[in-house]
Amino acid sequence: METPALYKRLAAHYLDAIRAGTLARGQRMPSLRSLMRTHSISLSTALQLCRELESAGWLEARERSGYFVRQPARLALAPMAEPAVHRAPDPAQYVGIHARVSAFVANRRAQSVKLNFSIARAAPQLYPGEPLRVALSKALRERPQLLTSAPQQRGDAVFRSVLARRALASGMTLAPDDVLVTNGCIEALNLALRAVAQAGDTVAVESPTFYGLLQVLESLGLRALEIPTSPRTGLSLEALDLALQAYPDIRAVVVVPHLQNPLGSLMPDAHKERLVQMCEARDIALIEDDTYTALVDAATPPRAIKHWDRSGRVIHCASLHKILAPGLRLGWMAAGRWQARVEMLKYAQTRNNEGLAQVGVAQFMGTGAYDRHLRRLRSALAEQRERTAEAIARHFPTGTRMNLPPGGLQLWVELPDGISGQDLCDAALAEQILVAPGALFSNSERFDHFVRINCGWPFGPDVEEGLRKLGQIAAHLGRQKPTRQRRSAAPDPSALA
Amino acid sequence: METPALYKRLAAHYLDAIRAGTLARGQRMPSLRSLMRTHSISLSTALQLCRELESAGWLEARERSGYFVRQPARLALAPMAEPAVHRAPDPAQYVGIHARVSAFVANRRAQSVKLNFSIARAAPQLYPGEPLRVALSKALRERPQLLTSAPQQRGDAVFRSVLARRALASGMTLAPDDVLVTNGCIEALNLALRAVAQAGDTVAVESPTFYGLLQVLESLGLRALEIPTSPRTGLSLEALDLALQAYPDIRAVVVVPHLQNPLGSLMPDAHKERLVQMCEARDIALIEDDTYTALVDAATPPRAIKHWDRSGRVIHCASLHKILAPGLRLGWMAAGRWQARVEMLKYAQTRNNEGLAQVGVAQFMGTGAYDRHLRRLRSALAEQRERTAEAIARHFPTGTRMNLPPGGLQLWVELPDGISGQDLCDAALAEQILVAPGALFSNSERFDHFVRINCGWPFGPDVEEGLRKLGQIAAHLGRQKPTRQRRSAAPDPSALA
Repeated sequence: METPALYKRLAAHYLDAIRAGTLARGQRMPSLRSLMRTHSISLSTALQLCRELESAGWLEARERSGYFVRQPARLALAPMAEPAVHRAPDPAQYVGIHARVSAFVANRRAQSVKLNFSIARAAPQLYPGEPLRVALSKALRERPQLLTSAPQQRGDAVFRSVLARRALASGMTLAPDDVLVTNGCIEALNLALRAVAQAGDTVAVESPTFYGLLQVLESLGLRALEIPTSPRTGLSLEALDLALQAYPDIRAVVVVPHLQNPLGSLMPDAHKERLVQMCEARDIALIEDDTYTALVDAATPPRAIKHWDRSGRVIHCASLHKILAPGLRLGWMAAGRWQARVEMLKYAQTRNNEGLAQVGVAQFMGTGAYDRHLRRLRSALAEQRERTAEAIARHFPTGTRMNLPPGGLQLWVELPDGISGQDLCDAALAEQILVAPGALFSNSERFDHFVRINCGWPFGPDVEEGLRKLGQIAAHLGRQKPTRQRRSAAPDPSALA
Repeated sequence: METPALYKRLAAHYLDAIRAGTLARGQRMPSLRSLMRTHSISLSTALQLCRELESAGWLEARERSGYFVRQPARLALAPMAEPAVHRAPDPAQYVGIHARVSAFVANRRAQSVKLNFSIARAAPQLYPGEPLRVALSKALRERPQLLTSAPQQRGDAVFRSVLARRALASGMTLAPDDVLVTNGCIEALNLALRAVAQAGDTVAVESPTFYGLLQVLESLGLRALEIPTSPRTGLSLEALDLALQAYPDIRAVVVVPHLQNPLGSLMPDAHKERLVQMCEARDIALIEDDTYTALVDAATPPRAIKHWDRSGRVIHCASLHKILAPGLRLGWMAAGRWQARVEMLKYAQTRNNEGLAQVGVAQFMGTGAYDRHLRRLRSALAEQRERTAEAIARHFPTGTRMNLPPGGLQLWVELPDGISGQDLCDAALAEQILVAPGALFSNSERFDHFVRINCGWPFGPDVEEGLRKLGQIAAHLGRQKPTRQRRSAAPDPSALA
């Protein structure tokens, strides 16, 4: 395992301190002299350390005063309100997302797009394309029979070992055979839901949640019961408790504990533990979508909900799509007491995943290069999030609210004055800018004045200009009476992927 | 496009003549002199031609008499009986295949296997591993962004063009956008069934049929109504007609028109046309599984059922898994009037397929190398089928019945004297030989005295010896009172893939 350069390791250390608030925004960074003394390093190493953090946007150099932790402008925006958790959920609100997505996409198709803020992934250059290419080429060269023999059952054994080993860091103890490789996290969610529920059953989900999950539920004939969710701490356990009392036929709860999509919330460990207990007490399945955990700004990842699972009721679903390679459909799951059923359903649905990508990626993930990639990706995204947030604060109308999530790919923006996210989306499309309207993230109308904005693009003049235009359009809409028009058309479900 | 050597082209020509019966078994091949005259070729080319066919097992040289078309010993076996089509299908027979597959697999797992006759694919060396490896490496080198960007909607556009172009040869006129790339044919079948039927609905299927389809139906909560099927001409339209009258709630018919699995039957064009009319008249979906068509022994492929589709009711499903690369999960479908729904379901189930394999395979399929591979594969399989059939005729007990299908990967063998295929399978496993018992191919007990035997392995002493042992065990079982024992255990659904 290759060791990163000393200055990079020290930079990661100080970045953790900044993110944890130990080094507060605006505070002075320890002087070069002090860094040299503390870490027994040379002046050039201390300088490299500071420049590394400066180039990533975490420090700013002030003339004759040294380095300071950068003060992001986004603090100018008010945070979002917490949801009202005592409102009983509305069981009628569980259909129609296919139609909404179709309408969104028909709009999108009619126009070419220059700036796509509607996706939820990073720019291609932020993924380790070249080392992955080398690893896959090597796998092809050394194991050409991967193409001509049937793929291994459950997935490549080495890949499953690597996944199981890495799961330890999230507090999960899994044997390689507890891991089933799937076509992305979305297949894992499909299999999990099919294993524990039948058409007509009710499933509790976060609100807002990503339209992908709502589509899965709708396509399986399941009813989504939307549970109020905090932009800071995730699913409201109080609201879930009320829902479980009101609807005893709930068969499963689906949560994204870390960097919830679209909120970016992070569920505290105490909530996770309590949630497991609640699901055990009611004998229902708890489906955990772990897609974004590696993007949490922390040196060690937060613990998975499955860490607290004592009775095999937690189905852990994850993927490498957002964090390693959007071009590969590599997901996996550990389904506890439903593992045998999930394996049978997976086999009947798509058979075993093909081996090539698994072998190549296992090779890459087995080296230090994977962790280095994740650190770089987190650092780049942190900067992009901050700069995007600053630009939103600069350009969006007064009253816009937003939280800055502790990691991840996106910002969830609440528009003021009842401005419709759909109207903003429609008008922006005329400027060849695409955002995801809040209406896609719920079967209700509750988030119609929100938009989700991707921070996966390296921040530059084009992004700045795009956000300026979006803010201008929003301000213009705020001065008008809000009107909403949706156009219906044939579906093109993948435009948002 | 590279031209195959002249003698190879001529050999293919004579092979077609042999297969079509123009040159009958036992008949004398035209003399070398006559070949030289007819085709204006040299003696050495004429000799190469004959030796090519001899080495593939089609001709035999008789001293001082020239070459003769080989007379296979399998003619010693009686063909199978046609099914009784006037027996009304039993609607109760539609559950339990998961349990059977699980029991089969638990047995298999308890033992290591030396000879696996239970699979349905060719040996790895019969697939074009090296040119595919080169094509995929090229795709990786030239388009590394395939790994770091989201895959294309519906599948790679060039790959879909190639598939649409090749579909012309089967009589289908498809635009590239009519083609949706899936994870193998099995995902296509899942999507087709989900698009046209709901849990509780009845679907007509061939009987026997491959357990994979029965598993899909069971996992989706659909009822399989098994329709008697001829080992020669496929699904009995008379029986289907009776079933449609008796069960007006049938929502779809699933057929494998070419080289049906396990029968190896070939549906005549007139049947296909009539079947389409029947489904139109009753307004039900017709799902066509085209997995094996390229393995039919003919210079031009038979026409797809979709050729006769005028109202978009035929859903054509296919894959490259059996014919090009078992290690890649490349399938596709053209769903007619259900295309938009199928795309939405596919997106919600597994998103778009990853691009790398599609790009590499499209490149390979766009050259003459693909057709040359298919010719070679068909030729190798023809020889292996014949030799395997001969060995079965030599070694299995008197009264064994079997048809020799016009292509494909397997033989469906009817055991005499009520010998149980399951007993044969159990006893063979002790000798580390695996066969697929007939009970896996139906929810009924109707095929319990059958086994399916893979002909994908190049014929050699090991295969001969394995078949000799199988025959010996069968003969031994025939002398005993048949008993059947099944062991229950945890499922391992992929051992038969």
